[in-house]
Amino acid sequence: MASIISKVKQAYLLFKHIDLDQISHLASKVDLGEVVHNVSNLDDKQLAQLMKMLNTGNHKERILPPIEGDFYHLDHVLTTGERELQLRLRNFMETDVKPLVNHYWLKAEFPFEIIPKLAALNICGTTYQGYGCPNLTPMMEGMLAMELARVDTSISTFFGVQSGLVMGSIYLLGSEEQKQEWLPNLQQFKKIGAFGLTEPEVGSAVAAGLTTEARRNGDTWILNGQKKWIGNSTFADVIIIWAKDVADGEVKGFLVRKGSVGLNVEKMEDKMALRIVQNGLITLTNCEVLETDRLQKANSFKDTANVLRMTRAAVAWQAVGCARGAYESALDYTRKRNQFGKPIASFQLIQNHLVEMLSNLTAMQTMVLRLSQLQHEEKITDEHASLAKVFCSLRTRDVVSHAREVMGGNGILLQYDVARFVADAEAIYSYEGTKEINLLIVGRAITGFSAFV
Amino acid sequence: MASIISKVKQAYLLFKHIDLDQISHLASKVDLGEVVHNVSNLDDKQLAQLMKMLNTGNHKERILPPIEGDFYHLDHVLTTGERELQLRLRNFMETDVKPLVNHYWLKAEFPFEIIPKLAALNICGTTYQGYGCPNLTPMMEGMLAMELARVDTSISTFFGVQSGLVMGSIYLLGSEEQKQEWLPNLQQFKKIGAFGLTEPEVGSAVAAGLTTEARRNGDTWILNGQKKWIGNSTFADVIIIWAKDVADGEVKGFLVRKGSVGLNVEKMEDKMALRIVQNGLITLTNCEVLETDRLQKANSFKDTANVLRMTRAAVAWQAVGCARGAYESALDYTRKRNQFGKPIASFQLIQNHLVEMLSNLTAMQTMVLRLSQLQHEEKITDEHASLAKVFCSLRTRDVVSHAREVMGGNGILLQYDVARFVADAEAIYSYEGTKEINLLIVGRAITGFSAFV
Amino acid sequence: MASIISKVKQAYLLFKHIDLDQISHLASKVDLGEVVHNVSNLDDKQLAQLMKMLNTGNHKERILPPIEGDFYHLDHVLTTGERELQLRLRNFMETDVKPLVNHYWLKAEFPFEIIPKLAALNICGTTYQGYGCPNLTPMMEGMLAMELARVDTSISTFFGVQSGLVMGSIYLLGSEEQKQEWLPNLQQFKKIGAFGLTEPEVGSAVAAGLTTEARRNGDTWILNGQKKWIGNSTFADVIIIWAKDVADGEVKGFLVRKGSVGLNVEKMEDKMALRIVQNGLITLTNCEVLETDRLQKANSFKDTANVLRMTRAAVAWQAVGCARGAYESALDYTRKRNQFGKPIASFQLIQNHLVEMLSNLTAMQTMVLRLSQLQHEEKITDEHASLAKVFCSLRTRDVVSHAREVMGGNGILLQYDVARFVADAEAIYSYEGTKEINLLIVGRAITGFSAFV
Amino acid sequence: MASIISKVKQAYLLFKHIDLDQISHLASKVDLGEVVHNVSNLDDKQLAQLMKMLNTGNHKERILPPIEGDFYHLDHVLTTGERELQLRLRNFMETDVKPLVNHYWLKAEFPFEIIPKLAALNICGTTYQGYGCPNLTPMMEGMLAMELARVDTSISTFFGVQSGLVMGSIYLLGSEEQKQEWLPNLQQFKKIGAFGLTEPEVGSAVAAGLTTEARRNGDTWILNGQKKWIGNSTFADVIIIWAKDVADGEVKGFLVRKGSVGLNVEKMEDKMALRIVQNGLITLTNCEVLETDRLQKANSFKDTANVLRMTRAAVAWQAVGCARGAYESALDYTRKRNQFGKPIASFQLIQNHLVEMLSNLTAMQTMVLRLSQLQHEEKITDEHASLAKVFCSLRTRDVVSHAREVMGGNGILLQYDVARFVADAEAIYSYEGTKEINLLIVGRAITGFSAFV
Repeated sequence: MASIISKVKQAYLLFKHIDLDQISHLASKVDLGEVVHNVSNLDDKQLAQLMKMLNTGNHKERILPPIEGDFYHLDHVLTTGERELQLRLRNFMETDVKPLVNHYWLKAEFPFEIIPKLAALNICGTTYQGYGCPNLTPMMEGMLAMELARVDTSISTFFGVQSGLVMGSIYLLGSEEQKQEWLPNLQQFKKIGAFGLTEPEVGSAVAAGLTTEARRNGDTWILNGQKKWIGNSTFADVIIIWAKDVADGEVKGFLVRKGSVGLNVEKMEDKMALRIVQNGLITLTNCEVLETDRLQKANSFKDTANVLRMTRAAVAWQAVGCARGAYESALDYTRKRNQFGKPIASFQLIQNHLVEMLSNLTAMQTMVLRLSQLQHEEKITDEHASLAKVFCSLRTRDVVSHAREVMGGNGILLQYDVARFVADAEAIYSYEGTKEINLLIVGRAITGFSAFV
Repeated sequence: MASIISKVKQAYLLFKHIDLDQISHLASKVDLGEVVHNVSNLDDKQLAQLMKMLNTGNHKERILPPIEGDFYHLDHVLTTGERELQLRLRNFMETDVKPLVNHYWLKAEFPFEIIPKLAALNICGTTYQGYGCPNLTPMMEGMLAMELARVDTSISTFFGVQSGLVMGSIYLLGSEEQKQEWLPNLQQFKKIGAFGLTEPEVGSAVAAGLTTEARRNGDTWILNGQKKWIGNSTFADVIIIWAKDVADGEVKGFLVRKGSVGLNVEKMEDKMALRIVQNGLITLTNCEVLETDRLQKANSFKDTANVLRMTRAAVAWQAVGCARGAYESALDYTRKRNQFGKPIASFQLIQNHLVEMLSNLTAMQTMVLRLSQLQHEEKITDEHASLAKVFCSLRTRDVVSHAREVMGGNGILLQYDVARFVADAEAIYSYEGTKEINLLIVGRAITGFSAFV
Repeated sequence: MASIISKVKQAYLLFKHIDLDQISHLASKVDLGEVVHNVSNLDDKQLAQLMKMLNTGNHKERILPPIEGDFYHLDHVLTTGERELQLRLRNFMETDVKPLVNHYWLKAEFPFEIIPKLAALNICGTTYQGYGCPNLTPMMEGMLAMELARVDTSISTFFGVQSGLVMGSIYLLGSEEQKQEWLPNLQQFKKIGAFGLTEPEVGSAVAAGLTTEARRNGDTWILNGQKKWIGNSTFADVIIIWAKDVADGEVKGFLVRKGSVGLNVEKMEDKMALRIVQNGLITLTNCEVLETDRLQKANSFKDTANVLRMTRAAVAWQAVGCARGAYESALDYTRKRNQFGKPIASFQLIQNHLVEMLSNLTAMQTMVLRLSQLQHEEKITDEHASLAKVFCSLRTRDVVSHAREVMGGNGILLQYDVARFVADAEAIYSYEGTKEINLLIVGRAITGFSAFV
Repeated sequence: MASIISKVKQAYLLFKHIDLDQISHLASKVDLGEVVHNVSNLDDKQLAQLMKMLNTGNHKERILPPIEGDFYHLDHVLTTGERELQLRLRNFMETDVKPLVNHYWLKAEFPFEIIPKLAALNICGTTYQGYGCPNLTPMMEGMLAMELARVDTSISTFFGVQSGLVMGSIYLLGSEEQKQEWLPNLQQFKKIGAFGLTEPEVGSAVAAGLTTEARRNGDTWILNGQKKWIGNSTFADVIIIWAKDVADGEVKGFLVRKGSVGLNVEKMEDKMALRIVQNGLITLTNCEVLETDRLQKANSFKDTANVLRMTRAAVAWQAVGCARGAYESALDYTRKRNQFGKPIASFQLIQNHLVEMLSNLTAMQTMVLRLSQLQHEEKITDEHASLAKVFCSLRTRDVVSHAREVMGGNGILLQYDVARFVADAEAIYSYEGTKEINLLIVGRAITGFSAFV
């Protein structure tokens, strides 16, 4: 009897603040004695884990770490002014662009309404001096490409064509008159440009085999041939056409103005990637261009290649941005989506995906950071850029694929953003030189042997 | 002098049948002596290779091996009648379906015009007996799924819903009256069905957590809840809705007829995969269903699971078909596309991709062949099917990715077919159980430990 | 007061069979009220999971599923007699071989003591007829190769040289006298053979470029040259040397007997894989061989290639065995090794590895099963075998790598077996044709273009 | 007739400097007319390629680019003095260490003879100040770890234990007397230390679960328990043993001197990786240690963790070194090894491997460079270090695997160095925290959810 009283007293003390109804209800479902026995057998660590687990029901009130795709703090390398510009661009992209892109992507149209605000950021012609250009560093050019692509790869491609390929060609290879006419207008997006290099049978990286021909006739050039994939060309005010001069076999550049006779641009309709970018199939049929619209300093494909080298690092940064956008979307999703009563981000299999993404993303970021430093120090070579292009576009493909996977079926819905990144990563992977071409460029540099054929 | 005459004579004999003008022209470009010296230094094997290489200019006239994605001859396992049926379906898919699919995919619409011819093939309800069904083997069911997906994964999904999930539910769990009413009509596509299991917050493989509720009221059931991703549901004549009976907590199945009060189906518009499949978001608001339209033998989720097990192997075969279609398209493309003057299929880097694809494709094929044998011998378990689903959908993702890569930029244009396979593979990868869920099913079976939570 | 009594009563009833001391002890560590509250908030499913989790402390008494690396039941394809033979060999390998192999591997020596028991199994010369050979099917030959390699890849290599390459050469290309002299002795391991094809500068798959020369002088042949990697050659009674006849440039085969003048065999000491296999570097310096010891039906490399084709499928099966051994060891380890108080096999990350292994293993098994069927039906081609070699050796590398990983540091200790499989898989990967050579063989077959050079 | 004379004349002029015998010999093997015809049909580019190809026979005289595993010029970030030190260490490793390591690796012994020269480099205790230490930057510490591992991972591990774990523990947690006694001697390798944390059942990263116990008895501590994998312990003058104080449950550190009563160290013999590192299994049986040999500032596991954090980045650099060594060996090999008459480095498939290696290697290098910068700026966190550990050890595994593959069978011979890197990479992959543990550390940091159990 004493023992019973003692036991009751013990129980009373233990449970006076506890809701016995809850316990009763539990007892109807589980064997309480076994539970207590099992719990008592746990060591302190296990007990702590159990307590933690039971508390995860309260996760919604938890303060989670910020969603941040810059794990190794590349932004700390920026000056205060550069950092502010980065954030200004980010704000524009998130506020003005992000709400539009899925809609336009699905319709395969371009959101012209964003252009004025983009112009106002004054970032076009990023690294150039004069003509209204901001004269920023190569690293800053990379950072901006990343910020653009982090929200939408199409918009970053649109920007890259205008700021890098078109303005770059004129900046490097144009006469002073040509620069005066075009650069300030292009910089402010008052005019839009396109860059016509790739042909139906000739990829962008093997442009030496161009078949489009230019034939001089007095002060006029007659262009004939086809160009494919030319971004922005359906609405561009000027298209830079690269063609072989039949007289000397050298590749030369021509500023072909919108509406020129013999210029036909057909929109490419059935793309499954970068659907916002308006790619055109251009047919030149005795298209006439004045000698004054020939890029005066473009005398051979080597000159074209100089433009490409200047813009190539930015493409690697663009891949990084695409991967970063996908990673951040996926991380956000997995912290909100529940399964079995807890956020899927708390499962090992999902963390495996997330960390795989993050490690690739961080590796890419540190690689392009170093690449931009080499560019800044003017030590960059074609093979440096090619390696970054290969690595970043390959890893981006991997990152977006993991991002889609953690979202399950929702990963194929545009509204969650990652589907668009998945598709667009395929385009980045192949443009400005496929993996194969870029690896052979690097392979030749390290082995001393060319294996192109 | 004699030596000169001798030399001339020697030269005369050597060159009497040879066009010296051609040689002269060559001599203007290369050092002939060095060429002869270098060629003479080649051993016989190298010489043979050189000759072969020089002949590749004539490759267009070459008879190339057929494009064939059945490297280990699975078709040899079929009976003559089965083989004929396979080829009849293939002919239909290539002739009547292939020319349409890219167009419909881009518009996200369904090609209803193909239904009569598909019906005429008499393959729906493949393995069932009676009610007009052809009573074929599981392996044949798999082969047909592969043939459908080889041309278009959306069409194979449409078929899989109708023939497997919908007819299977009624065949296994319906009353005789229900079978009589629905099966012959479904088999002939006079009626179209949908299968409503997945919910916005509950993936298909964890369906035990269903939140859609059914409440019996006399001879009527009142359904409330939401279903997401339901294929064919926007136009289906009947949607099988799975819901929890609030009385006993068990999952039951209901034949909800088109136009029922309280049934709302909204088309899901922003998919980037399987765009031909019309997925609906279904909202049931006090939707009334008669007790006679309740599946009479569906008494718990175990019964639903029996349907899923019957159809799951076909999904693995579908993945194989998708991979096969992509491989064959890519092989064809690489044999026709030239670079540096020869077909890209003749480059090592491209053959690397092709053989990587083929080895995965062949491994998948042999795996599902064995799986269907186990199914035929009634030895198949959930974990067998899950393993095939995991392996095949993972490897398919890999195959389509290589296929897209060898096509360079053209790989993102729908007209070359592979872009569609790339997108659709993502859907297969996640539907009927994500990789994670299926791996945990297998993991539990082999380790003895459940790691779902 | 009444409420207190009621509460006490309630508590008494609840806890009368429960050890309150245990609860008191728990109460000293955790907030019991919060625990009860949190547990009460769990739904039934979560509660069930919690109970299951608490019970995992008892896992040691659990009956776990058997360790089984034949997930798709290939053994069901065997006849009863074949199945018995498979198990007899397995028993021998596990009982007589497994306890020895790590010891010998570390010392790089061969366990000659196992030979009599291996001979007694009567499996050598597996598919041949007469001369004491058991005349089994190609599939059975594969199964046996898998069983051998499942315990030790070196032993399976030793067997493959003797049974396949050496006996096969004599069986296919020897005269009746040569068969009578050698086959029964080799079949019973009374004599040991070696197969001398590979040379220091010529890999096994490109054997047409052989530099070892044979010069006939009356009834004697004089051999000069070097052979590298020749397995069993340090102790073989006979080495089949393949050499180019200087007279007609054709490759011919010679039975070079142990102790021949001019034959020097040096053991290769610094291997990190297949350390039990005794590879020799053979130098032939005017080594004399009688015409009667020339393989009478070996007239060109095509004949040698016929032997290689016969044995190649077995190499793919060997890779499967290696993967299977590693998988089974890893599964066993992960079910026994604890971390955080439970077997690591119960963690998602570990199940991820295990299922990845199993899916590859199963794919390999179904592929070689089909390959052996093609072999049996005499439909096998070089490219079929090459594809299986590429796929299986590549996937085996992947499987053993995962196996090692789940074992953490212990994975590099030989005593846990997987370290040996990891190393040996590298050898399988490269022998009988590297991945590159085999892929180019397949690539040529599917594209119609040779890309070897 | 005139035409014949003209033709002869033409031939004479063409061939007067050419060896007609060579042409005759060629004519006996190939159809010269067809050759000329085919060659004439080549365009200029193809012709140039053909000429290049024919010239590859002369590749041996070519000046090839240097073998260089620092593609993005990390060395340019160093000061002149740092760069000199790097090269001094490299010279020591290549001259004094490289010729020895394969021999010692095979015998599983340590090359004590290198210690004096290693000491003379004065790099031990790299980042510490005073006590003879050189007080270098974290980046320099990383660079040196890379240089060591580039030649041999075992030696770099030996160094890492001495310089980082042992000296670091004493530097951070020892009393001034302890520092004075040990640091100068350790820095000059007059004394060798070991770091005893890991236990048979407790991996290095979960050290909180330590079972080794310390019980204080007056001025003496009694240690009991086991430690496994302890590098250098078989010959160390002092082993730092981490044990739980039974009084307060906290982990404390003890300087256990060689020859202490109750200290038993058994060499672990059957490792297949890092065979030069002498790992011991330590058994402590009532081992007595004076209170004055207890690390005076080590009061809990948090203190131990501080040491680990300081050394962790160096492990990532070590992985980079291992990958770099393998890459450089493989590149060198492929430029020298011929197949089909040309260096295998000139084949696309081999360049694919090389560039894959180089891109991973470069990504790793830029990642650890940034990590060291974060360390220098004292921004480094556990998860930063864990991410680098995961990424670098994973990618290193990949790099060494490709390196082995391009070497074919020779890749398993120690003499070519890569086999050793392949094996050792497995050890790096698992030590100082497996991939799983490190990913869960990162996963927790980014998601906010712990998924360890």
